[in-house]
Amino acid sequence: MIAPPTTRAEQIIARCRELALATDVPGETTRTFLAPSMHQVHALLTGWMRAAGMTVRVDAAGNLRALLPAATPNAPRLLIGSHLDTIANAGAFDGILGVVLGVALIEALAEESPTRAPLPFAIELIGFSEEEGVRFAKPFLGSLALVGQLDATTLALTDPSGITVADAIRNFGLDPAQLPAAVLDDSAFAYLEFHIEQGPVLESEDCPLGVVEAIVGQTRMQLVFTGQANHAGTTPMGRLRHDALAAAAQWIVEVERYALACPGLVATVGKVESSSGAGNVIAGRFTANLDVRHANDATRHAAVQHFLDYAASAASSRGVTVAHTKSIDQPAVPMGSALTAALAGAAARAMGRAPRRIASGAGHDAMIVVRRVPAAILFLRSPGGLSHHPGETVLAGDVALALQSGMEFLRGLRDDRATFERIAGAVARRKREDIHE
Amino acid sequence: MIAPPTTRAEQIIARCRELALATDVPGETTRTFLAPSMHQVHALLTGWMRAAGMTVRVDAAGNLRALLPAATPNAPRLLIGSHLDTIANAGAFDGILGVVLGVALIEALAEESPTRAPLPFAIELIGFSEEEGVRFAKPFLGSLALVGQLDATTLALTDPSGITVADAIRNFGLDPAQLPAAVLDDSAFAYLEFHIEQGPVLESEDCPLGVVEAIVGQTRMQLVFTGQANHAGTTPMGRLRHDALAAAAQWIVEVERYALACPGLVATVGKVESSSGAGNVIAGRFTANLDVRHANDATRHAAVQHFLDYAASAASSRGVTVAHTKSIDQPAVPMGSALTAALAGAAARAMGRAPRRIASGAGHDAMIVVRRVPAAILFLRSPGGLSHHPGETVLAGDVALALQSGMEFLRGLRDDRATFERIAGAVARRKREDIHE
Repeated sequence: MIAPPTTRAEQIIARCRELALATDVPGETTRTFLAPSMHQVHALLTGWMRAAGMTVRVDAAGNLRALLPAATPNAPRLLIGSHLDTIANAGAFDGILGVVLGVALIEALAEESPTRAPLPFAIELIGFSEEEGVRFAKPFLGSLALVGQLDATTLALTDPSGITVADAIRNFGLDPAQLPAAVLDDSAFAYLEFHIEQGPVLESEDCPLGVVEAIVGQTRMQLVFTGQANHAGTTPMGRLRHDALAAAAQWIVEVERYALACPGLVATVGKVESSSGAGNVIAGRFTANLDVRHANDATRHAAVQHFLDYAASAASSRGVTVAHTKSIDQPAVPMGSALTAALAGAAARAMGRAPRRIASGAGHDAMIVVRRVPAAILFLRSPGGLSHHPGETVLAGDVALALQSGMEFLRGLRDDRATFERIAGAVARRKREDIHE
Repeated sequence: MIAPPTTRAEQIIARCRELALATDVPGETTRTFLAPSMHQVHALLTGWMRAAGMTVRVDAAGNLRALLPAATPNAPRLLIGSHLDTIANAGAFDGILGVVLGVALIEALAEESPTRAPLPFAIELIGFSEEEGVRFAKPFLGSLALVGQLDATTLALTDPSGITVADAIRNFGLDPAQLPAAVLDDSAFAYLEFHIEQGPVLESEDCPLGVVEAIVGQTRMQLVFTGQANHAGTTPMGRLRHDALAAAAQWIVEVERYALACPGLVATVGKVESSSGAGNVIAGRFTANLDVRHANDATRHAAVQHFLDYAASAASSRGVTVAHTKSIDQPAVPMGSALTAALAGAAARAMGRAPRRIASGAGHDAMIVVRRVPAAILFLRSPGGLSHHPGETVLAGDVALALQSGMEFLRGLRDDRATFERIAGAVARRKREDIHE
């Protein structure tokens, strides 16, 4: 008898909570790249994976990789994964839910048809060692290794105690020289990731699941408005006053107005600093950090240009100057369209209604893996829109629906030859073209 | 022969620079209430005052008080003064210029008519021990003692090392029990203060001197906008976003717009703090300090009310709340009108043109002394509008004109019996009324 999905969903949640106890900071969940607590996570997951019939290894980047073999040795391989690391003082679901859900999928498959022949494709579950960028101030170390882009520069990065990425790998008992063996081979044909939304959109629309159409492109920059510090009481308003904060405030209002008027754009000024340290001093300098995201790069670039132009004009009308430095200019990453359509269809069958098509405002491992194979992401509703917070949760009913969606997706690949060909065949063709280029 | 005013002006500047070397922090000028360096200031000034024929004492609040006697023992007494303390890392002229200029006036009087009979009024030069509020976070300690308002609560205030005002007085070799003897007696009839403008108005109008009509009233408050911290990428614009910083920015723009449209009003938001510590986090809380000043209290109160109403509306349109706390609500202080008219007339005779009538955007000892006797302030142009800064200067030509204005003022009091009666008589009448109330 197949366990009722709700029960399995509750088990998924319980496993995530158990894994959240693996931490390097007692009393909270903080687990960075290959920190000691990662051994405990690997041990727990490995136990469940092996019990589900998978073979497990840890690659040289510290990624936990479990293989469910196919009927034939050289069959194509579906990847399912997410990350095992956390931010400081994290919740129990961001990242690791996708791995635990993958394990449950394998278990559900086995329960569904214990006597059935293996699938015509292998499944590799991947628990990425790093996605959050906490320890080395650079994210995606695990998935970069998977696509062969964990380069020498990155390996030489140091954490706050001076330990390099390469040293961290060695300290965990691994060998950086083996990194080439971590790179995906050509049998991989698709990547599927389950992740909490980390935002309020699904909840606000009363929708349990969303299918990601693209990961938004992102610009981050710092603007420094420079006016003249002066006495707030003795400096009259107008041309004798060069108020850097007033100029910035006018600009911040315009950033919000423009983003509201541009569908899908988010633009935020959150971290700021005024040079004025007293209530009676006009700010001579004001520093503002701008974050702009959109699924369409041209739309994002036009917004950024408008914001820069407007800042210059808001500044100059007050005898203030403005300078900017970009720290991030990262293009949008569209998800694989045939794969995403198959995932959306599977979710629709599971839910009895179409899932919300959504742009992901945050980065995910899928945006790196998609450099090699098509990728798709299924979002689970985040209650309260809460993430990166100890109070982060998921609803058991939503987890059950995500699990059913995954099962529908796997059944589709197994039973619907046309879909399978559309997804796996595209990769095979692209790879043949790569070789001939 | 009378020394040319320019030479005397240069001597005034040189003396201010010499006094600026008396500091408690080597390499800069920092001289707080009764700090050790104040002994050196007292010694230098006392030498010049005695040489000019004055008797000198230090009252129990540490004010340096020099008397030039009148022809008769119970004659009315004109006060001239300013403060001897400084902010941290100060310039050489804020405050002390008014005392050094007073000494030079006495010297100029003596040189002008060495054989002449004494004036029909005494002159008391006062170097106030404290005006800036640095050491005990409360300003005007010196002038408050003069008007009998250095109360027990103030005497019990402590500095950062736990020393009380009373202890600081004792440590300087003075006796707090003698404070009643520091209070002005009824012979004082007017107070005259020379001070740098500390703002750019006179310079921008190419005017060496200004006569203060009023010291502006002042409101200081802190507004705390509370929204909801959230992910800048995954939280869409609009009703799901509660951006405390965006609400505050809209309000800051309105504060500036309203103040520009209201003649004489200055309103400033300079010191602010965002709760967002990262470029990708929406500010859940934003704290802004507001400073509002105007010579008319009703105008200022109306502005403050508008700012509070507008803040509430800018906040609520974003699902943000706003709370405020007032730290200062200080009424405007008009200067004595007959005295101010006499000073303006004297300055006009000295300059050959009318001085600028100006509101003082900053507080001065005159606003405390005026609680007992009419007060008037003559502003000297601040080059670059610069004050509270080591680069603070005055022009020798402006100092010469201020000195001539002072001489014209003293000659007017001496020679024009009607003016003298108008000023001194008003005080005498008021004091009689006080007694009868």
